[in-house]
Amino acid sequence: MSFLPKRFASTFTMKAIPSKSHHHFQLPSSSFPSGFLLGGIHAGVKKKAGVPDLAVILSTSEHPTSAAACFTRNAFKAAPVLVSDEILSKNGGYARAVVVNSGCANAITGKQGMDDAWAMVKATDALLSPSKSASKFEHETLVMSTGVIGQNLPISKILAGIESQSPRNEKTRVLGSDFKAWERAAQAFMTTDTFPKLRSRVFTIGGVEYRLAGMDKGAGMIHPNMGPAGTSFFSAPKQLHATLLGCIMTDAAVSPRSLQSALTYAVDRSFNSISVDGDMSTNDSIYVLANGAASNGKIIDEETDTEGYEIFKKELTDFAADLAKLVVRDGEGATKFVTVTVKGAPSYRDAHNIASRISTSALVKTALYGEDANWGRILAATGSVPLQPTSANAVSPTIDPTKVSVTFVPSDGTSALLFSSMVNLRR
Amino acid sequence: MSFLPKRFASTFTMKAIPSKSHHHFQLPSSSFPSGFLLGGIHAGVKKKAGVPDLAVILSTSEHPTSAAACFTRNAFKAAPVLVSDEILSKNGGYARAVVVNSGCANAITGKQGMDDAWAMVKATDALLSPSKSASKFEHETLVMSTGVIGQNLPISKILAGIESQSPRNEKTRVLGSDFKAWERAAQAFMTTDTFPKLRSRVFTIGGVEYRLAGMDKGAGMIHPNMGPAGTSFFSAPKQLHATLLGCIMTDAAVSPRSLQSALTYAVDRSFNSISVDGDMSTNDSIYVLANGAASNGKIIDEETDTEGYEIFKKELTDFAADLAKLVVRDGEGATKFVTVTVKGAPSYRDAHNIASRISTSALVKTALYGEDANWGRILAATGSVPLQPTSANAVSPTIDPTKVSVTFVPSDGTSALLFSSMVNLRR
Repeated sequence: MSFLPKRFASTFTMKAIPSKSHHHFQLPSSSFPSGFLLGGIHAGVKKKAGVPDLAVILSTSEHPTSAAACFTRNAFKAAPVLVSDEILSKNGGYARAVVVNSGCANAITGKQGMDDAWAMVKATDALLSPSKSASKFEHETLVMSTGVIGQNLPISKILAGIESQSPRNEKTRVLGSDFKAWERAAQAFMTTDTFPKLRSRVFTIGGVEYRLAGMDKGAGMIHPNMGPAGTSFFSAPKQLHATLLGCIMTDAAVSPRSLQSALTYAVDRSFNSISVDGDMSTNDSIYVLANGAASNGKIIDEETDTEGYEIFKKELTDFAADLAKLVVRDGEGATKFVTVTVKGAPSYRDAHNIASRISTSALVKTALYGEDANWGRILAATGSVPLQPTSANAVSPTIDPTKVSVTFVPSDGTSALLFSSMVNLRR
Repeated sequence: MSFLPKRFASTFTMKAIPSKSHHHFQLPSSSFPSGFLLGGIHAGVKKKAGVPDLAVILSTSEHPTSAAACFTRNAFKAAPVLVSDEILSKNGGYARAVVVNSGCANAITGKQGMDDAWAMVKATDALLSPSKSASKFEHETLVMSTGVIGQNLPISKILAGIESQSPRNEKTRVLGSDFKAWERAAQAFMTTDTFPKLRSRVFTIGGVEYRLAGMDKGAGMIHPNMGPAGTSFFSAPKQLHATLLGCIMTDAAVSPRSLQSALTYAVDRSFNSISVDGDMSTNDSIYVLANGAASNGKIIDEETDTEGYEIFKKELTDFAADLAKLVVRDGEGATKFVTVTVKGAPSYRDAHNIASRISTSALVKTALYGEDANWGRILAATGSVPLQPTSANAVSPTIDPTKVSVTFVPSDGTSALLFSSMVNLRR
């Protein structure tokens, strides 16, 4: 379920269209950002031979590559989350590589898990060619893992897989920049996903053309709530576990600060606005790399170029929403794709909380599954959300039940059903 | 699912025992509080002839009868909630009667709904014999409704039903004070419930013996969050809807203020700590009447008699927990009865929020249904709860993942499974 709340008069819009239709098609190579080398290989985390389970993404741009991330707000953060958070923060928002494995989440794995995540970082650092910025940073790789939790990674297989992509190993190196390379990388993200999730987009700022491309994965334990930072410590056997992972690359040049603020805004309005089963994972992570390879020297920054920044932020947000919706369509056991729209809430946060509550209500879900326009359940869910005070010491606003209406918008073109709680008060 | 959080080291305890075993048995008449006349009749709200759908409860004590209530915190409060809240508040905590109908919730019914609720109050007021206190209060009846929402009450049938219990109508009057009378009243509360929920208990304070008895109902839309007061306004077609309703009577004498504070405490630790489907109803209400019929003249009050008050509060809380558990056992579609215990949280509120989150997690529920000790889902649910700041400007505490353990306690006597997240950090 995806919920994208908006301001204005409280209306819920729900669309029910068949889930899991075909979502995979060839994307033109010209729509992928320049200055990235990437690929997916079978390292052996997954048992089935040939199935990609390790993705390596490298920036080859001669410009500095800025990076930003949003991580799960779960108190039980997996080792790759803690390690990547530390690297980004030490580097002040720069990183040139991402390494991703599926099949094992490296979550609840104690000190060994932390050591393994660091080993993946170091092995991937070694794939990067030296650059002007290289000397400044001890590490330049961010790491992500997804799969079973409570098990340690088969780390020697993973390290051998990373090493196989070194320029010294011409025979095994598969990294490239064409559609096939991007697709294999996206496949390496998959756990219970039924199709790889890859999208690309071209946009222009001030006459300069930039590209955005990225992949993500989901399936189960999908109700993300990710924030830009936060340090918690975690860690200590086998269960299936999925997660939201996403990685977005652009050849624009964006200051680290502005890249983070654009990503935080985009994630709140995309990945943080979807729900499959209402449960938040320990590994949810979205990374973005901006390598400046298509830049004309101008750096996008919210303070020095508000107009350019706003265009970039909007493009990133729309792109993130496209990627997020793919996760909803491919949710474990999903039979319906529903959009909940809330209008007229006192604040974006209240609208978000109400839409989130409706999306996770078992009674609303069972009504939608049964295709029953049970608006009473939607009102009951709405009314159960405490609104936030508008300022520190203010009294919380309350919902005025006489001004609420519920609309069901079918996706098959039949007319909408409108229920208004105002009607009866007028008689 | 009932959750009763406790302080000390964070441990979750889950019990799985078969739901819906036999819960109904004859209670001795001596265990029912004196000074109450009550009964259940078929007024015609429900279609099936003879099925009780209207309960009338009257205090016949010559002492003042104090009353307290906890109502749903849902913004869409049903007409009987709004009307009862207003009467209690005008009377300063006194009321001598309760009228209850099942089969129609009188929720989302606009002005007509309010008029109907008031008409039920007035008709029941007329059943009360004049008393010293009667002159002080315009109305002395609290009202409750449960059933389908969005439909108006068949008010003339209900009013005729109430009138049939007038002392003038000897042939139709069924009110009594024996087990049968209490049982019929409890039956009139039922909607999709499969058995009437009636309990009684005897306790002593300072050598004086008092009695508590009460009934409740539940089945669906059960995840109550009720508070002592609050005025919202609501009100406006047909859907099945259930609710938590409960009514507790005692022959102790309790000051209105202390009766409300004891009930608020008890409801937080009983009815507000259960969940069937995670959805909060528009009608949830718990009333308590204390008629002083067994009093030796002494009034229980938290300020003038702390010791007596604390005993009363504990008895009321334990009794409310017993009634609340009956609702969980009889939940719509329920196959398991699970207790979640949280120990060692920074505050009762945090422990309550974590236990509530675990109880409503779809992934935890599916794991328990599948009888899979998936502790990772419990940790993920735990870690997703934001802890509350301990004081207004304090930073929120965080969960230390290295100090959390999860225990599954089977109800069949087999040994418990313990998972500790500390284990792996020590190697």
